Amino acid sequence: MVFEVTTLGTGAALPARGRYPTAQLLNVRDELYLIDCGEGTQERLRMAGVNFNRIGRIFISHMHGDHYLGLMGLLSSMHLQGRSRELHVHGPADLKEVVHLQLRVSQTYLRYPLHIHAVASVSGEVIMEDDRVTVTALALKHRLPCTGLVVKERAGLRSLRKEMLPVIPAYRRAGVKQGEDLLAEDGTVIPNAELTLDPPARRSYAFCSDTAYAPELVPFLTGVDLLYHEATFTEALLARAKETLHSTARQAATIARDADVGSLLLGHFSSRYKSADVLLKEALEVFPRTLLSSEGATFKVGTRG
Amino acid sequence: MVFEVTTLGTGAALPARGRYPTAQLLNVRDELYLIDCGEGTQERLRMAGVNFNRIGRIFISHMHGDHYLGLMGLLSSMHLQGRSRELHVHGPADLKEVVHLQLRVSQTYLRYPLHIHAVASVSGEVIMEDDRVTVTALALKHRLPCTGLVVKERAGLRSLRKEMLPVIPAYRRAGVKQGEDLLAEDGTVIPNAELTLDPPARRSYAFCSDTAYAPELVPFLTGVDLLYHEATFTEALLARAKETLHSTARQAATIARDADVGSLLLGHFSSRYKSADVLLKEALEVFPRTLLSSEGATFKVGTRG
Repeated sequence: MVFEVTTLGTGAALPARGRYPTAQLLNVRDELYLIDCGEGTQERLRMAGVNFNRIGRIFISHMHGDHYLGLMGLLSSMHLQGRSRELHVHGPADLKEVVHLQLRVSQTYLRYPLHIHAVASVSGEVIMEDDRVTVTALALKHRLPCTGLVVKERAGLRSLRKEMLPVIPAYRRAGVKQGEDLLAEDGTVIPNAELTLDPPARRSYAFCSDTAYAPELVPFLTGVDLLYHEATFTEALLARAKETLHSTARQAATIARDADVGSLLLGHFSSRYKSADVLLKEALEVFPRTLLSSEGATFKVGTRG
Repeated sequence: MVFEVTTLGTGAALPARGRYPTAQLLNVRDELYLIDCGEGTQERLRMAGVNFNRIGRIFISHMHGDHYLGLMGLLSSMHLQGRSRELHVHGPADLKEVVHLQLRVSQTYLRYPLHIHAVASVSGEVIMEDDRVTVTALALKHRLPCTGLVVKERAGLRSLRKEMLPVIPAYRRAGVKQGEDLLAEDGTVIPNAELTLDPPARRSYAFCSDTAYAPELVPFLTGVDLLYHEATFTEALLARAKETLHSTARQAATIARDADVGSLLLGHFSSRYKSADVLLKEALEVFPRTLLSSEGATFKVGTRG
């Protein structure tokens, strides 16, 4: 079942060179989650052929414009398209005031229920749980309160062992898939482990943008299948990275290595880099399974081979 | 001397079909004025090769998102580019609160002085005057207070008649160019009309978006050289135009004809029209000197032949 992320924008605060501000679309079993929503995100979604109505939740990491300024336009377009499905937005406490003020002054009365949830930026805290995923927070290290995410699949159902199908009555199958034992006709108990196979491993995606080098995140990132980590600068601009509370590509790779993640995905490239290859090269020296995000590219979140 | 307008976005509220929300760049003798600033305007400016620092003033017609949501991103990019030149923004009273709230929550302390002026939407009232133009308001007819503009060149200096140069002392030339008479050595007065030629005619541009059909604007538009007027729908959707307080192409052309403008420029096309040709055709039946705006196209504001 699908679990993949499409990077819609890979630029930093000053958009340039065909890069757009941060926005990512996470598809988990055909439900869409939008992560950050920089200016122009609705256009990027349209170019990716995405039906806005499939987006049920939006997560905003922090209140820097390159991570949220596309939200009002997207909310408005959903309204104009006649959306009726409710929408949940999870973001910093200030976001609600910013959205509500703009709805008020534009006299916009949304046709759909909009719920804006204030997120506590505490690593490991559950932000949201639905039938597909559990989303926990990462307290990133930035100039403003900035919240990263770990999105982990919820446990799937156990699958029935083919050879045991004849002994499991149809009306008990749902329960057995959920882990129940079976009481046989002769009164003996057949343990669930004899009836079923383990569900597929739970896949996980982590999103870290924007942040200074923050090794305290490693315990929360350990073992994720795909880690997106910002890589605004190369080590040559380490001082600038420290000053602006961003990361170098080497620092991103160090986090990936120390957390032993499946793969590392880099983004949030400073406009000074014509090509992000220099950032990739730097990261690869530390962590080999590194990828560059690009506008519109999709990356599968897979369990490790 | 240059007086021209570049239409950066020609779409209506729901952007689609390669159209962008409203934004226009007015160039008067190499000073740039931005009129409306929908989402993505900074990208459109970049694609048009415009140095943001040349923009001294921004006018926002009203608080519908497709006319102002690009402002915060542009203000932020000007800041990140190190702008020091002051910037004036003229718009609805609510705009100041919307901008200041977002600067506050993003903890952005702009490097340049930003002055946000509340505009009274009263037709004929002077909004702004500098050494190049006088800008007066047009009270448009829309769901929100919405202010159009008439931008008129200020009177240029009179030019000295070549044959009279010998009789005008150098130290009197500036005064004579401004219309002063000359006292000759023999005590007689030489009237200014004998010394100078009229300055070039004052060119004017008017901007009407968004508005229902508003014939009360005609006296304020009479004789402008180039009138931009929204044309969201065709007459087939007249009821929809009335309901949403927008205009049909025929209505825009009727205003242009009744105001006897030089040329009419149409824009703000509904996303339902794949091509705007149907709107052009409808307008041409009423007013022959009609043009279609398009993304990135530039139109000279010339006095009438």
